[in-house]
Amino acid sequence: MGSESIYCQGVGVRISQLARETEVPVATIKFYLREQLLHDGELTSPTQAQYDEGHVRRLRLIRALLGPGGLSIAATRELLDELVAPPAAQHDLLGIAHHAVNPAVPDGLDLAVTYQLMQRWGWHVDEQDHDTLAAFAHALQGLDAAGFELPEGALDLYARAMAEIAEAEVAAVPTDSAEAAVRYVVLGTVLVEPLLLALRRLAQQNASSRRFGDKT
Amino acid sequence: MGSESIYCQGVGVRISQLARETEVPVATIKFYLREQLLHDGELTSPTQAQYDEGHVRRLRLIRALLGPGGLSIAATRELLDELVAPPAAQHDLLGIAHHAVNPAVPDGLDLAVTYQLMQRWGWHVDEQDHDTLAAFAHALQGLDAAGFELPEGALDLYARAMAEIAEAEVAAVPTDSAEAAVRYVVLGTVLVEPLLLALRRLAQQNASSRRFGDKT
Repeated sequence: MGSESIYCQGVGVRISQLARETEVPVATIKFYLREQLLHDGELTSPTQAQYDEGHVRRLRLIRALLGPGGLSIAATRELLDELVAPPAAQHDLLGIAHHAVNPAVPDGLDLAVTYQLMQRWGWHVDEQDHDTLAAFAHALQGLDAAGFELPEGALDLYARAMAEIAEAEVAAVPTDSAEAAVRYVVLGTVLVEPLLLALRRLAQQNASSRRFGDKT
Repeated sequence: MGSESIYCQGVGVRISQLARETEVPVATIKFYLREQLLHDGELTSPTQAQYDEGHVRRLRLIRALLGPGGLSIAATRELLDELVAPPAAQHDLLGIAHHAVNPAVPDGLDLAVTYQLMQRWGWHVDEQDHDTLAAFAHALQGLDAAGFELPEGALDLYARAMAEIAEAEVAAVPTDSAEAAVRYVVLGTVLVEPLLLALRRLAQQNASSRRFGDKT
């Protein structure tokens, strides 16, 4: 949306222009600056700073993570820090992205059943992925506590479907640049979760509508 | 856990015993009573009430919805109300359960792409499922706003995987009693979401570990 034109002189813009360009109110941009989600502009006088295309891109990312991504300010800050200084190993990226979206779970969860399932499916999951294992164990415990029994074979079906999705996702991680890989992994983890959940609900409504018919 | 024995006399128990039985602190139970998540006990004197097995079951459900289910107090209250007075039509249940877990999204989202996709996949989704359609559109918009392009064919793969899961889930809805159906749909929607997301993350770690190898 015209972002080329306002920056083509190679000089930055003032905060009011940045706000117009990104459709984010000035007060909100100032809040992001205070919260260190957005990096400072370049000072051109003691009271004035200039912002560039990097700020526009970063603002769009912040809005996506806080909005549709559903992340907290703290989790967003942590992820953005990783985008600036990505880890050396491709595989570590996932752990960082997952850490940002894994829900807080109580300490001391029993992981025995979880490890049994990993073994049954032949999934290799590191010790370093402990909080994802704990998130899974916590979800299982929730079903159990509510007295909800999954239908026979449901867990295996879930695992098979998620394995198919994960294979395709990991195969598509760009390997040409670290920055591209980080963006892909972080955004693919955070922003695709709400998409998948909404898809499951739509698919259930479609299946239910065919099975039980409409009210009308 | 001994819940049979303390109720076999057919009389209720005091709040302190209910707390011991369910391992929920008395202050928390009182909070749930004030918030109308838990129904009142039977008054045996102006200052004393008795609680029964129904309270034990309800408390376990509340804990699961607020904990692993990740629901708010308000969403939990709404769902529990449905458990008490379930809707007549099987198909409406889904809408209610989905409403409780759909994220709040901005008004005036453009649903054109969403409807196109429903048509492409041949999914029949009601107008009454509007907030699930909006949740999906919002998730798509988030990807777009962050400049994240899904790999070729990824959306179709997600849709296929979720359709397979949804078919099995809807086929397993118990039809013998309304209460059983409501429990299944509500808990299967709310409590399986965190399970699926954790499974996707574990499957990604497994795929990544095989593709990129371990650090060690």
